[in-house]
Amino acid sequence: MTLSIDLNCDMGESFGPWVMGQDTEVLPLISSANIACGFHAGDPGTMRKTVAAAIGNGVALGAHPGLPDLVGFGRRSMDITPQQAYDMVVVQVGAMAATAASQGARLNHVKAHGALYNMAVRDPVLARALATAVRDVDSSLVFYALASSDMARIAAEVGLAVAHEVFADRSYQPDGSLTPRSRPDAMIEDPEESIRQVLRMVTEGRVRAVDGTDVEVRADTLCIHGDQPGAVVFAKSIREALAKAGIEVRPVTAESLAA
Amino acid sequence: MTLSIDLNCDMGESFGPWVMGQDTEVLPLISSANIACGFHAGDPGTMRKTVAAAIGNGVALGAHPGLPDLVGFGRRSMDITPQQAYDMVVVQVGAMAATAASQGARLNHVKAHGALYNMAVRDPVLARALATAVRDVDSSLVFYALASSDMARIAAEVGLAVAHEVFADRSYQPDGSLTPRSRPDAMIEDPEESIRQVLRMVTEGRVRAVDGTDVEVRADTLCIHGDQPGAVVFAKSIREALAKAGIEVRPVTAESLAA
Amino acid sequence: MTLSIDLNCDMGESFGPWVMGQDTEVLPLISSANIACGFHAGDPGTMRKTVAAAIGNGVALGAHPGLPDLVGFGRRSMDITPQQAYDMVVVQVGAMAATAASQGARLNHVKAHGALYNMAVRDPVLARALATAVRDVDSSLVFYALASSDMARIAAEVGLAVAHEVFADRSYQPDGSLTPRSRPDAMIEDPEESIRQVLRMVTEGRVRAVDGTDVEVRADTLCIHGDQPGAVVFAKSIREALAKAGIEVRPVTAESLAA
Amino acid sequence: MTLSIDLNCDMGESFGPWVMGQDTEVLPLISSANIACGFHAGDPGTMRKTVAAAIGNGVALGAHPGLPDLVGFGRRSMDITPQQAYDMVVVQVGAMAATAASQGARLNHVKAHGALYNMAVRDPVLARALATAVRDVDSSLVFYALASSDMARIAAEVGLAVAHEVFADRSYQPDGSLTPRSRPDAMIEDPEESIRQVLRMVTEGRVRAVDGTDVEVRADTLCIHGDQPGAVVFAKSIREALAKAGIEVRPVTAESLAA
Repeated sequence: MTLSIDLNCDMGESFGPWVMGQDTEVLPLISSANIACGFHAGDPGTMRKTVAAAIGNGVALGAHPGLPDLVGFGRRSMDITPQQAYDMVVVQVGAMAATAASQGARLNHVKAHGALYNMAVRDPVLARALATAVRDVDSSLVFYALASSDMARIAAEVGLAVAHEVFADRSYQPDGSLTPRSRPDAMIEDPEESIRQVLRMVTEGRVRAVDGTDVEVRADTLCIHGDQPGAVVFAKSIREALAKAGIEVRPVTAESLAA
Repeated sequence: MTLSIDLNCDMGESFGPWVMGQDTEVLPLISSANIACGFHAGDPGTMRKTVAAAIGNGVALGAHPGLPDLVGFGRRSMDITPQQAYDMVVVQVGAMAATAASQGARLNHVKAHGALYNMAVRDPVLARALATAVRDVDSSLVFYALASSDMARIAAEVGLAVAHEVFADRSYQPDGSLTPRSRPDAMIEDPEESIRQVLRMVTEGRVRAVDGTDVEVRADTLCIHGDQPGAVVFAKSIREALAKAGIEVRPVTAESLAA
Repeated sequence: MTLSIDLNCDMGESFGPWVMGQDTEVLPLISSANIACGFHAGDPGTMRKTVAAAIGNGVALGAHPGLPDLVGFGRRSMDITPQQAYDMVVVQVGAMAATAASQGARLNHVKAHGALYNMAVRDPVLARALATAVRDVDSSLVFYALASSDMARIAAEVGLAVAHEVFADRSYQPDGSLTPRSRPDAMIEDPEESIRQVLRMVTEGRVRAVDGTDVEVRADTLCIHGDQPGAVVFAKSIREALAKAGIEVRPVTAESLAA
Repeated sequence: MTLSIDLNCDMGESFGPWVMGQDTEVLPLISSANIACGFHAGDPGTMRKTVAAAIGNGVALGAHPGLPDLVGFGRRSMDITPQQAYDMVVVQVGAMAATAASQGARLNHVKAHGALYNMAVRDPVLARALATAVRDVDSSLVFYALASSDMARIAAEVGLAVAHEVFADRSYQPDGSLTPRSRPDAMIEDPEESIRQVLRMVTEGRVRAVDGTDVEVRADTLCIHGDQPGAVVFAKSIREALAKAGIEVRPVTAESLAA
């Protein structure tokens, strides 16, 4: 069986007259798009155009629900209840599902955005609310979650296929969690080291933690940070390295996860 | 075959902490609910609760998309393009469809709100944009349109089942259109006359126009104005009158329209 | 010198077509109004009408800036930076000051709303950001702050006249802070006890803490919770009790605080 | 007396994380900035930073109020009442005035944005509402209006100093109005011709209309379209041409208009 990994990237984060991101350049390099749904970014027209562009590039469609905070781009934590989280995910996934349906396509996955993602990583009750919302709308959707996290475990418990997400530019702790950004060794600055980390995660299912020990990690999908200047260059490098290593880039779907 | 009519009413027009409408009182009296989708009113929590209440009352679920104008409650005309209209209907119908799906139910129909409805009555290009959006999301949805209007004709051309909507409290012109509100004889103030007009529309398919002539009108669904003080009393009266006349109150569905 | 206290209440918390509060009933009973500025509630029309009503009742005008969160009514904490807090207070105070100016009046004070107030009580850096924003817009404005709090101390340091705010329905800790709502003895349910607490705070500058000890408290202004069903009845009772005790109800102004 | 003209440009039209415009490049070339106030663009942080940048460049500060339509960037006409127009101008001017005040500066002028400007050009009742709002907030503010329009006349009647605004890239009708954009000869494509038109308007107070006749026009301020790719190049060219012709570039103020 061929080894593979999904490359996912946030897309469609323009808003009204304001353009953001390098969607046109990034789309040919990824296999799944997390498309903003209007709460932290995106508007109905941007959603339509982004879905069309993703379809045109053969990229899997994902909803990317966020907190209702345009000015803060969904990156400011908010003290929402699990019920409110559930509700905001339902409508955002629905808005994106309809945008896909109107173009004869369907959603593949859901990845929470920014603070909503981070809050769910830390708070199991919130994680369960998000996963339950996704399942209740469409139980065939894949749920993207931080690899080896409670969030991933809970989404599986809820009954969803879960894509474990890893990061190329973040270091790992001995327990498999990401090193907090407040720590000096949180980021991997060297692109070559980033790529080596990814390759090892895919081929061996392990990552070298900051203390030098090895820790198991499941790498279904790799996050490409589309908002960073070097995103396109990095995406090309990682694709090249994956190709050389015989690792296929392809979307993670409910079917592929079940296989 | 039993004569029947649908009674539809706008629902779920609260927003965040603000309550509007008499949903609890009106829901037992109607057969289909047009539920606000967050653009002119409604928020994710209100949408969920309203869908639950409608299901609890056995009322058909409809999306009620409006213009993106909370302060103006979607009642101020905006100079939007047909593409913008299409896009905003897609996402609003999707948000409501997901809310229904998350509760194990499905949408029955779509009725545009306020200025969006009125603009589509006057502008065939806009009407086509709205109907196409609904069809592209889910071609089995019923499209509510002003009886005998171009909007109704266009929605049928687009391929949708169309519910022709009539009004109890509005007078009609010889060509079947509503008398503009700017005219002194636009409104029917007398509840008894309102009810007689409705009964005749259902039983005979005709309405007496303001010039005394009779005009044909198709009455699939009657609009109950939930935002008016006498809404509950009027809804009870009309139900009583319909019952006496042997006219059933039931939702208008794609199946019932095809029958 | 006559003893006095200000009675303040949140006002103008309607939004677009949605009505909230009992402004008409409460305005004749209070001496200062904290008027929502459009971020958590209020819209330009509501702001204008509320300012007019306050002027008509001889009530001092205050800006009531909140978090940008309509659906959550500004009651959900958000992880904003001090700079963001500063900026959002500047524009909200300015919007309200212009609304007052357009009616030939001027602002008297600023009281932060909901989560913004509570966050500033807990976070001295945020408190300083709020106070600095107010001072930078108009250094003659009175800053309302929780009595005996760091927030009050900081606002004074920044150079503002500060109104120390007390609560009738909340119990106090031996250090002068409010008993957290999570504690069973946080609320004073008995209206008579509430009134006794207020009278003693005004006449003696003391409150009996939950442990039975007395603690000093400065009571410049009393918060009337306009969103509670019994608000009007309570406001009438407290006014009656204050009148009997010879305590005047009047706004707290920069001049009265300096006296 | 030295001839002079003001060069005005819309500024601060970024929103939250989204950047728009070439403010840094344009600011050194203009004499007055119309700064977005949060309704069609701009957020509290952007407002603060733009005011700071304008002050740093010695550019006069103007409020640039627009319709409440972020997605449409305030360019879609909305059917608002004169009272609603009045209210939205009051709060936006106030928000910008406070932003200026917090930096020790004050507003010089107000120019309506996009559809709000165009609607006021066509509708005298709306024009009066806008001008009255500005006057009621601060009667010393200069009102920017289309040269020779009813809007300009009405603002003067209301009691405001009025800056008559001309356009370099638009042709004029024999009655002094702009040629509608729907007409093929509406735009002046040739930059040299644009510049000649401006010079003549300043030195002679006349413009050659599309029918070849001359029409009087008062040119207090020239609109620089900052959102166009060639804006910086054009602004430099016009400044050079003005300098050669001995025409000073300076803000239009209540004092300069009264002189």
